[in-house]
Amino acid sequence: MSTEDTTARRRGRRPAGQDTRTALIEAARTVFAEHGYERATVRAIAARAGVDAAMVNHWFGGKEGLFAQAVLELPFSPLELLATLRDGPDDKLGERIVRVFVTRWDGAGGDTFQALIRSVAGHELAATVLREFFSRFFAEVIGDIGADQAGLRTTLCASQVVGLGMVRYIARFEPIASAEVETLVTAIAPNLQRYLTGDLGL
Amino acid sequence: MSTEDTTARRRGRRPAGQDTRTALIEAARTVFAEHGYERATVRAIAARAGVDAAMVNHWFGGKEGLFAQAVLELPFSPLELLATLRDGPDDKLGERIVRVFVTRWDGAGGDTFQALIRSVAGHELAATVLREFFSRFFAEVIGDIGADQAGLRTTLCASQVVGLGMVRYIARFEPIASAEVETLVTAIAPNLQRYLTGDLGL
Repeated sequence: MSTEDTTARRRGRRPAGQDTRTALIEAARTVFAEHGYERATVRAIAARAGVDAAMVNHWFGGKEGLFAQAVLELPFSPLELLATLRDGPDDKLGERIVRVFVTRWDGAGGDTFQALIRSVAGHELAATVLREFFSRFFAEVIGDIGADQAGLRTTLCASQVVGLGMVRYIARFEPIASAEVETLVTAIAPNLQRYLTGDLGL
Repeated sequence: MSTEDTTARRRGRRPAGQDTRTALIEAARTVFAEHGYERATVRAIAARAGVDAAMVNHWFGGKEGLFAQAVLELPFSPLELLATLRDGPDDKLGERIVRVFVTRWDGAGGDTFQALIRSVAGHELAATVLREFFSRFFAEVIGDIGADQAGLRTTLCASQVVGLGMVRYIARFEPIASAEVETLVTAIAPNLQRYLTGDLGL
């Protein structure tokens, strides 16, 4: 998209500041819903919002971040999360996954996890979009390790992480609901680590 | 409750056959909702349905079975499930749990798992009632093993089983969504077994 095009389009209907952000979130929900994650383009979302495509990077760090905010309502950027997960030895990745997800979800009081599950349980489309997003995201995390059966390992990890969220934030089973983060890391990380780098027996 | 009492109460408004079953399910939903699992009594539910309390045993095998049908919409009896899970060595309990839950949920096309999650995600009360039921049920399964930290082990197992259901039936992440039951047993059972009888590191 040329600068002239976007400048012309923006004139007269480009919202400013937080309005830009809100317009992008609303446009993103529509475009992701219509086209799914892969086929939705930043350009199409920006055009629908009537703003410059560069605003997506400015406000959300890219398509992943916009998706995370607009559809998953995650309170953090996937790129930042990816950097955190990659920052350490492979044999401690299970620990980092438990610690990072629980810490972030705890920080939002569990509300974002609930919103995510309600969305996925209530709408087939949200599940489809989440599926695409999740497989791409964890493929990047797990891809570095170079283990076989990366797809199965990814989804096995997802099952444990999602289930932990269900038990801690939604069903609120004790003692997991009130457990310290590091207690959960100690109890659960070895299981995630087996899924990531262990012998699956297959 | 004396036979005279119930006979008198039943006259004139006792429904028959499947109607009895339906009336009990509707009454159970109301009474479980008002009082929670522990405080709801078979007598109160039967009275509300206008039927003899013995009909609860006849149709549902007891309070657990009625709860499973009315609130959890499980397609099987918890008592029967309990017998299956207990039938084998402790060091294969993880295998039995994965195999039994996936087989039962698969048999219902995943619909019952979806109904369960929608119910729990949408209503705080369903989560409360499920929590009571689940902790009692798995305490009976795990209690036999005599491991320390039974409560934590129970909820760790719950997190893996619920997460597996989420990934297979709701988010439908591949390859888990289409995997053979025994593939899932092989990949996941060792993790459940660690939760059940392994060293949690705590």
